Amino acid sequence: MRTEISTIGEFGLIRRLTENISTGNSSTIQGIGDDAAVLEYSRKQVLVTTDLLLEGIHFDLSYSPLKHIGYKAAIVNFSDIYAMNGHPKQITVSIGISKRFCIEELEEFYMGLKLACSIYGVDIIGGDTSTSLTGLAISITCIGEADKGKIVYRNGAKDGNIICVSGDLGAAYMGLQLLEREKQMFEDLRNDFVADFSGKEYLLERQLKPEARKDVIDMLEQASVIPTAMIDISDGLSSELLHITHASGTGCRIYEERIPIDYQTAAMAETFNMNVVTAALNGGEDYELLFTVPISSYDIITAMNGIHVIGYVSEAAMGNCLIGRDGGEIPLMAQGWNPLGG
Amino acid sequence: MRTEISTIGEFGLIRRLTENISTGNSSTIQGIGDDAAVLEYSRKQVLVTTDLLLEGIHFDLSYSPLKHIGYKAAIVNFSDIYAMNGHPKQITVSIGISKRFCIEELEEFYMGLKLACSIYGVDIIGGDTSTSLTGLAISITCIGEADKGKIVYRNGAKDGNIICVSGDLGAAYMGLQLLEREKQMFEDLRNDFVADFSGKEYLLERQLKPEARKDVIDMLEQASVIPTAMIDISDGLSSELLHITHASGTGCRIYEERIPIDYQTAAMAETFNMNVVTAALNGGEDYELLFTVPISSYDIITAMNGIHVIGYVSEAAMGNCLIGRDGGEIPLMAQGWNPLGG
Repeated sequence: MRTEISTIGEFGLIRRLTENISTGNSSTIQGIGDDAAVLEYSRKQVLVTTDLLLEGIHFDLSYSPLKHIGYKAAIVNFSDIYAMNGHPKQITVSIGISKRFCIEELEEFYMGLKLACSIYGVDIIGGDTSTSLTGLAISITCIGEADKGKIVYRNGAKDGNIICVSGDLGAAYMGLQLLEREKQMFEDLRNDFVADFSGKEYLLERQLKPEARKDVIDMLEQASVIPTAMIDISDGLSSELLHITHASGTGCRIYEERIPIDYQTAAMAETFNMNVVTAALNGGEDYELLFTVPISSYDIITAMNGIHVIGYVSEAAMGNCLIGRDGGEIPLMAQGWNPLGG
Repeated sequence: MRTEISTIGEFGLIRRLTENISTGNSSTIQGIGDDAAVLEYSRKQVLVTTDLLLEGIHFDLSYSPLKHIGYKAAIVNFSDIYAMNGHPKQITVSIGISKRFCIEELEEFYMGLKLACSIYGVDIIGGDTSTSLTGLAISITCIGEADKGKIVYRNGAKDGNIICVSGDLGAAYMGLQLLEREKQMFEDLRNDFVADFSGKEYLLERQLKPEARKDVIDMLEQASVIPTAMIDISDGLSSELLHITHASGTGCRIYEERIPIDYQTAAMAETFNMNVVTAALNGGEDYELLFTVPISSYDIITAMNGIHVIGYVSEAAMGNCLIGRDGGEIPLMAQGWNPLGG
């Protein structure tokens, strides 16, 4: 079914996309429907983060279903709030849409958004819907809350702290490589092509439908551990770790053999003849949490499911190094993002 | 001077655009530089609004300087916060940029943003910078504050209330028509063309560098008048008034002769052979405030500089009508926005 947006107009479209949206958090006083949403945060501090996702840069509609794009667009923002040791509570959602989209496709996008919001307990409180002359543009702002004394910044890492990371790294990046390869093969072969993703499901899931680590924040809370610094891994371990050490005025040492990598990631890297550690260091989109804690929390942290100690914080003069399996030191480099889309 | 973004990379660009940004509001605990900004609103309610502005839809770089685009992008968000009877305090700014932009152009954009923020007392607290495959995309989220009992929604208008509007209407729309005409003439004539905007400066200013009506909110506060309903006029008087009466379950009567129109707007409409009342009703981008107050506030309101009483709220059964100069009734229609850019 394909219903053109022109059949219902702006107000009709907004009504259709938002009609089942209700709010559930006590901090949400008024959601969609006025010039601004109204919130109340009298007992907590308020966290605000925002992400702009553009077609062709952040997602490719040829292999990303719109429902997954909606889900992921929400998740990447939640992840930033968890990285402050807070909890996401509201989002606003703006979309720029071109006429090639039909109502059903936009409903798919909203289904993904709503699913993420319902799983993570977040209210959709507003947004903006606009025409786009070109591709799909998605802008999400997420508002969260945290107790005043418990917010974790990037700048609190101390010499001697241990460096921890949740989950495993590099899988989302390998998932992207896999999808790009299949897309290329599909374009080359067309009707003769059947994609085979068996044994690579984890990589696809990490790329197309990532999760934010609410469970890690809850585990830390239950164990009464407040990290000294924390960040989420969106641009790759290397660049995120440098953000922490730069902001904290420290250096770091991490160990290659301790970087958590899933076997599917390793197998895929082998197939592609890529260095799996490079994928973990620079790949990005893992949405795992990277944090530092005092050495006194070592036993508590290592007892936690899925948390890995990968190294320690050093004096700034020591620099930022990866210690290879052979014991050699490799300086960590920030690869970051290339503003020209390379 | 034209410095390519590639010479400094992502982090260099963000540093350069944000290096002089400091925060001034007591509610801003931590601005740019971490996964999320941190705010504190323990005594006020929090207002959140967001706007997505896309090149070719919301602005045309052939006649809008980037500094003005930055200024206007901030203003349209502030206006939504004032429309709730609140005060804007923070914004996040996301931009998607293509490689045809140089650093100096993005600095111009930020200069406009910063100017608006400094005039209206708003902190820039975060954002996102991304590559765009096509045009410039700007997403701004504005956070504001209001006293709990003083927030004004759209749905509080009561039968018998008077309907008030600040400033004058239709000028921004006529300014847009003028710019579009000059652009067309420039394209037709090229070197032989000299634009003549004398006597039309007000129209251009209203289109290119609008202001938000903080002064009106301050006047109402000083006079202890809390409107029963309020909205800002971004889509034209007609459609905004229908939002209020629809949300409030009422009708309305407004008088053609009372709609405030500047003489430059009227003269330009004459030149273009357009109906100036239609421009005021459906033109949009005025960013004036439309509000309703009890009849008991009539004397206070009419004594205020630049506030015009244009009609009254009626029972829903009376419908929504414009009373023409000849006494005839014309039903108000929502023109709204066309999602296909028409």
